[in-house]
Amino acid sequence: MSADKAPNYQTLTKHFQSISHFEHLSALGDWDQATMMPIGGGEARGAAMAELAKHIHSLKTAPMLADTIAQAQQESLTLEQNANLREINYQYLQANAVPGDLVEAKTKAAYHCEQAWRDQRKNNDWQGFKPNLENLMSLVKEEASIRAQALRVSPYDALLDKFEPGMTTASIDNIFGQLKSWLPELIQQVQHKQASEPRFDIPSASAANQALLGREVMQVLGFDFNHGRLDISSHPFCGGVASDVRLTTRYDEADFTSGLMGIIHETGHAKYEQGLPLAWRGQPAGLARSMALHESQSLFCEMQVGRGPGFLKLIQPHLKQLLACPLSHEQLTNIYTRVTPGHIRVDADEVTYPCHILLRFEAEKALVSGELAVADLPDFWSTQMQSLLGINTDGDYKNGCMQDIHWAVGELGYFPSYTLGAMYAAQFKYAMENQIGSVENAIAAGKLADVMAWLQSNVWSKGSLLEIDDLMRQATGETLNPAHFKRHLENHYL
Amino acid sequence: MSADKAPNYQTLTKHFQSISHFEHLSALGDWDQATMMPIGGGEARGAAMAELAKHIHSLKTAPMLADTIAQAQQESLTLEQNANLREINYQYLQANAVPGDLVEAKTKAAYHCEQAWRDQRKNNDWQGFKPNLENLMSLVKEEASIRAQALRVSPYDALLDKFEPGMTTASIDNIFGQLKSWLPELIQQVQHKQASEPRFDIPSASAANQALLGREVMQVLGFDFNHGRLDISSHPFCGGVASDVRLTTRYDEADFTSGLMGIIHETGHAKYEQGLPLAWRGQPAGLARSMALHESQSLFCEMQVGRGPGFLKLIQPHLKQLLACPLSHEQLTNIYTRVTPGHIRVDADEVTYPCHILLRFEAEKALVSGELAVADLPDFWSTQMQSLLGINTDGDYKNGCMQDIHWAVGELGYFPSYTLGAMYAAQFKYAMENQIGSVENAIAAGKLADVMAWLQSNVWSKGSLLEIDDLMRQATGETLNPAHFKRHLENHYL
Repeated sequence: MSADKAPNYQTLTKHFQSISHFEHLSALGDWDQATMMPIGGGEARGAAMAELAKHIHSLKTAPMLADTIAQAQQESLTLEQNANLREINYQYLQANAVPGDLVEAKTKAAYHCEQAWRDQRKNNDWQGFKPNLENLMSLVKEEASIRAQALRVSPYDALLDKFEPGMTTASIDNIFGQLKSWLPELIQQVQHKQASEPRFDIPSASAANQALLGREVMQVLGFDFNHGRLDISSHPFCGGVASDVRLTTRYDEADFTSGLMGIIHETGHAKYEQGLPLAWRGQPAGLARSMALHESQSLFCEMQVGRGPGFLKLIQPHLKQLLACPLSHEQLTNIYTRVTPGHIRVDADEVTYPCHILLRFEAEKALVSGELAVADLPDFWSTQMQSLLGINTDGDYKNGCMQDIHWAVGELGYFPSYTLGAMYAAQFKYAMENQIGSVENAIAAGKLADVMAWLQSNVWSKGSLLEIDDLMRQATGETLNPAHFKRHLENHYL
Repeated sequence: MSADKAPNYQTLTKHFQSISHFEHLSALGDWDQATMMPIGGGEARGAAMAELAKHIHSLKTAPMLADTIAQAQQESLTLEQNANLREINYQYLQANAVPGDLVEAKTKAAYHCEQAWRDQRKNNDWQGFKPNLENLMSLVKEEASIRAQALRVSPYDALLDKFEPGMTTASIDNIFGQLKSWLPELIQQVQHKQASEPRFDIPSASAANQALLGREVMQVLGFDFNHGRLDISSHPFCGGVASDVRLTTRYDEADFTSGLMGIIHETGHAKYEQGLPLAWRGQPAGLARSMALHESQSLFCEMQVGRGPGFLKLIQPHLKQLLACPLSHEQLTNIYTRVTPGHIRVDADEVTYPCHILLRFEAEKALVSGELAVADLPDFWSTQMQSLLGINTDGDYKNGCMQDIHWAVGELGYFPSYTLGAMYAAQFKYAMENQIGSVENAIAAGKLADVMAWLQSNVWSKGSLLEIDDLMRQATGETLNPAHFKRHLENHYL
């Protein structure tokens, strides 16, 4: 397709290539401030990042875009180019919904809030965190309200749409409603079954040795260290860009199992990024499909691969060598499939995890609608934790509503993606098993690469070229079906 | 000064504040690519940095600037505001000299050349490096020629002006001419004097322990770790921004003395950055005065402080504790004042160092004028090294013309600043000693802080509020006078 035949489309690809360069710098700034930046550098960084966000926003709302997009839609394009144009238009509509001043104000408030949160969380300082969160939340509500008007949906739907194009509160209410109908009983059944199982001591391990182990396990999973690295941050994440993926984790010297599984989880995100279509780098069609699909890849790596006996057998020699860990792979499997209601979402097992999301989903809906004030969040949290998991969190803000980075940076609407992702992951597994047989058997037979190749072919290489329902249909024969998740949990835990 | 009274000046400060935010991101990208980035991330980073450079260039050449600057020059401003306006105008003139396309092309070529140079240097691969350098050099010559036309000076003067406002080839020819008239004889005298001195073995030390030592020595020098950090790169530098200074060094496990002094040197740069006037952060008047003045601060830290017996006595216990180093401070002083002609500029002693600069100055003049082709650089290098220092570098590109990062990133015109900086540093020392007495005595009396306070007051806090000659007159009573450097070397080495 020469520029002569589709000049407007070519103008758009050039423009969005520029945007991707600035987003590269934004990703670097985010990663650095979470891993490397000394605290005193925060103010200037916050100002620089706000300026950058404003600039990216101005590029995505350039006055020429409306006409150029409309004209490009009349041009003769390939299927893939049309998909890219669809994603360009989506980004344009998303960006145009919110004025630049608000973007800048929210970015600044988010940086301020997050920087302070790092210490406040350590110190269980709810009184210090509350005014920052109130300030940020008023900007989030303003953003939601403005987006809602532009997209003609409800304010919370407008936030969901940032992460899951097309997803609605009503759909999630329905899906999460099904979950609520069987999950509490399943948790009780699993706990009853596991009550008589033995418990094993976990040996302590230095952070340095855990980091060495983490890098070896990432190698086993096929992480490409020529295009990425592993560092430490207070909240694990997968950042950077597709050609240079920056993973982070945190290490608990008394319990390596959490940090190790954190790395395996984030490596799932990284594999998706590293596997995105090379031909579409720098274009919207080359980006990951949605946050839930991203989460499906990290959860696949963690739940369908990482916590299974086959994979644990594969990496057990590394644990023995680097951490002098005496646990067998059967014992590790037992540890990694224990179901125990707990305070911390990121440490939760696969079965109780959705309860943490149900809580946050309800809280976010109520925060955005105004039914819940920030000041009342700790009480709301306590009530829900008591009701969903039988846990008392009164006064424990650090392990309660201050535990996650999401709200501290003003990201609402994201949490549902975690559980939607778990559902996508289960659906991928059963579809994959129809084609290549049992995942466990493949790993046991030394064919982890076959599992990864299926994901590369059916998910990663698709980028955003397909819409989510088409991607799911092509890969699995149907759109999102939460029944696979139920089957997965029952098969693994009962 | 309200915006009402000087609206054009206020417009300019706001505009240059934006520019400083993007320059913050540029500094971060540079630091990251030298310290953290995996090699596979280089291509996308190079493209992003080129886009950023182009954007900064477009901001510095915004069409409104010419009129706004002209009108601001008619407004009623304070002395300091006028200084800031002078620096704004300097930046505007510098940026306007070169078209955006050339800036982008050079940034891209520089990234490509530098990335490849990292491995090529290790492998002594001149044939691999040569075409990259030729490509980059043709862009440098184009830049020099365009700048020369705009500033109505010679091409090499136009490059000097990027780093030393107002400095000319003629001035440097004169100053370096004086140097040449007495330095060769001084080197011989010093070598003769030192021939009978004892030599000491340097114990090996792990990179990890050297890094711990480096951080302790930085503390002694008053480096503020709340606003900076220390990492490793193949070529030591001081990057980042004033509120978050990123030092780097490299460690030789067989000889810690070079890495340690590298850290002390870079800490001098860092102290200047951290001491720049807070009230002028983000404005051109708040930046360091010139590259030579920057170098004067690193060299002051290294030559006037770091290699002296007083300072070495202060840090000797740290060396003993962390490196199990048995050397006394007298032995360390001996090691750190040894004069030995060598291949590597950054490892050169204070006395032979200017010879490395004389060589590079002559090479750069000839490369830019076209009298010297890149292909002939190794021969030129060999001839000069033989003549200046009696060293044969035939075939040793790694330790010859490929040793420095400057040419690999297309930075010509910078090298003279090192020796001008050494001269400024000596001049500061004698001026300071007129006021607070001997630097050595101050350090011995536990008053290193007094030395730093003099620099803070007379150099760092001035930013670019004064022009270099005014700064030197206020601080030392006269403009640059190379006689102080001669006196310094004679006092220390004869």
